[in-house]
Amino acid sequence: MGKGRLEAFSDGVLAIIITIMVLELKVPHGTELSALIPLLPVFLSYLLSFIYVGIYWNNHHHMLHATHHVSGGVLWANLHLLFWLSLIPFVTGWMGENHFAAVPTALYGVILFMSAVAYSILQRVILKANGKDSVLAKAVGKDWKSMVSPVLYLTGVIMAFYVEWMAGALYAVVALMWLIPERRIEKALSEK
Amino acid sequence: MGKGRLEAFSDGVLAIIITIMVLELKVPHGTELSALIPLLPVFLSYLLSFIYVGIYWNNHHHMLHATHHVSGGVLWANLHLLFWLSLIPFVTGWMGENHFAAVPTALYGVILFMSAVAYSILQRVILKANGKDSVLAKAVGKDWKSMVSPVLYLTGVIMAFYVEWMAGALYAVVALMWLIPERRIEKALSEK
Amino acid sequence: MGKGRLEAFSDGVLAIIITIMVLELKVPHGTELSALIPLLPVFLSYLLSFIYVGIYWNNHHHMLHATHHVSGGVLWANLHLLFWLSLIPFVTGWMGENHFAAVPTALYGVILFMSAVAYSILQRVILKANGKDSVLAKAVGKDWKSMVSPVLYLTGVIMAFYVEWMAGALYAVVALMWLIPERRIEKALSEK
Amino acid sequence: MGKGRLEAFSDGVLAIIITIMVLELKVPHGTELSALIPLLPVFLSYLLSFIYVGIYWNNHHHMLHATHHVSGGVLWANLHLLFWLSLIPFVTGWMGENHFAAVPTALYGVILFMSAVAYSILQRVILKANGKDSVLAKAVGKDWKSMVSPVLYLTGVIMAFYVEWMAGALYAVVALMWLIPERRIEKALSEK
Repeated sequence: MGKGRLEAFSDGVLAIIITIMVLELKVPHGTELSALIPLLPVFLSYLLSFIYVGIYWNNHHHMLHATHHVSGGVLWANLHLLFWLSLIPFVTGWMGENHFAAVPTALYGVILFMSAVAYSILQRVILKANGKDSVLAKAVGKDWKSMVSPVLYLTGVIMAFYVEWMAGALYAVVALMWLIPERRIEKALSEK
Repeated sequence: MGKGRLEAFSDGVLAIIITIMVLELKVPHGTELSALIPLLPVFLSYLLSFIYVGIYWNNHHHMLHATHHVSGGVLWANLHLLFWLSLIPFVTGWMGENHFAAVPTALYGVILFMSAVAYSILQRVILKANGKDSVLAKAVGKDWKSMVSPVLYLTGVIMAFYVEWMAGALYAVVALMWLIPERRIEKALSEK
Repeated sequence: MGKGRLEAFSDGVLAIIITIMVLELKVPHGTELSALIPLLPVFLSYLLSFIYVGIYWNNHHHMLHATHHVSGGVLWANLHLLFWLSLIPFVTGWMGENHFAAVPTALYGVILFMSAVAYSILQRVILKANGKDSVLAKAVGKDWKSMVSPVLYLTGVIMAFYVEWMAGALYAVVALMWLIPERRIEKALSEK
Repeated sequence: MGKGRLEAFSDGVLAIIITIMVLELKVPHGTELSALIPLLPVFLSYLLSFIYVGIYWNNHHHMLHATHHVSGGVLWANLHLLFWLSLIPFVTGWMGENHFAAVPTALYGVILFMSAVAYSILQRVILKANGKDSVLAKAVGKDWKSMVSPVLYLTGVIMAFYVEWMAGALYAVVALMWLIPERRIEKALSEK
């Protein structure tokens, strides 16, 4: 089974997720620069979520590039990932409009955590379909980022109830950690 | 005529359908966890519809993978299917916001029923264009799920007027039945 | 220059146009079947526009299938067509919510007319880039539908100010006329 | 690494950006032609932004057509461009709904400026990945438009605080300047 349509559908869903978030940035009524100030936290949470969806698209791109066999299980594991990512616009809006209040910020972390879990399930299903000696298997081997991220998300969830802004800051740090491109897979591919 | 653009357009429409449903999950005003409780039925109906659209995308993917010839009739049968699926966000919102009330829940079942009818029309048109000995024809042969589903949808529609929650439960059961991947076509393909 | 991205971008825009129209079908507050009655004209105009966008996608598909060379002019003529089509959700909403009142129904016809003009400009630019002896040139030769449609749209525009429902009926008739697939190009291709 | 998915994802995001802007054209309540008059500035700003996103899609298309190697840096530079472009619907709505008032019109220019900067960063990253002797490098060589545009955008930003309509006019002039297709790359390609 080809992976072309899996990629096309995922691209479509991710493109829509990343774009409809901007609809939460509602056009303000005033025309002064000060009319934008209440939008600042909404903008910041949009920026953070844009980067996160970008990271997922980027890693998804790399992972599927190194994938040869797509099974029925891969299709569903992929939809499972897209489900959690599709909730990002909702939690982004809730967190942004409430200036990073405790519960919304914690829920944002929960969705990030569930997305990370869904991604690692997808990775496992793909590895199973492609064999232990595949390019992907080698690349994934020492994947410290994927291990550290969920722990940091959960730390953020708990932190949100004590020092709210630190939870947001922690999510931003994890995003920056991922912005450094996924060189592991690129390397493994070029060593082939 | 190539099937590439048919797949691309369908992927686009399905990706948008599955994603705009989340816009119905309106950002609540409060910041307490309790602010999410009224959203629970909306969330549940979103989850159900996400799975249904996922199932349609999945089966569509498999069916077109086994398709070689695309006629003008196939294009229109496909648009007909997309039309009914495009109404899913509307009935999802109506059902969810009214806590699975009788009429909205029944209408949800009607749209599922019409989508199933449209899918089986598409299947028939594709079979006609590809011949009785095609890979697809063999796979479809003993398709009990496609026969059972419309009956169950209609049962749900009637049930909605007596025991509302059972209609929703029935739709969920049909979804679970389909979650088991479409192995028939995969098998037929690998036997080739 | 390849035509792949032209098709992909057009598919994306058309898929979004056809899908966001459903957002105009706002979830009603009541849960009675009668709550849907005020939505009926909105639904009818949605159905009409869905068919029109489907026709454009279908014909666009056929035309580009028979196209080999894509110039810079083709890209812009295509964007010009997409611009007019992108206004269809707006006029659909205006016409539907006002129960096919005179001015909105006339404006709907104007947008259909401008879309038809833009389509024929695109056709001309593509023909210029592909030569008079191309498959497409032969197919387009005796294109009576493309000549008749703009006249009927303008008739509808005028009619809207006298007998409103007849304008809507006329638009529906033109749509039905086009639903019969574009066999001319298919024939010319198979004769090749 | 293939460029196919980069193009597909960008096409998706650009298609959505160009289409959701039309949602800002809210269906008016009256049915008179005069009900459309307050929408005129919104329509004009929609037209302007449609052309701008069209220009970016067009140039992006040409640039990637002449690209052979896609690195991790290219993916992120591309996302960075899409981020600024994703803000166009917001500033379009703000500018249009406030009849080209000073601050919104200036902010519109700022987003155009940032998009231009992001585009030139993407160009530089692509050139770096493809070498100085590449087709693209030759084509970009004497790119006066890309140098002039940012200066004109900033002029518009300042002008918006003195003669508001002239800022809008200036943005329109830059758009017209770009409407003339990107012949440089086409030439370089055909000389190859």
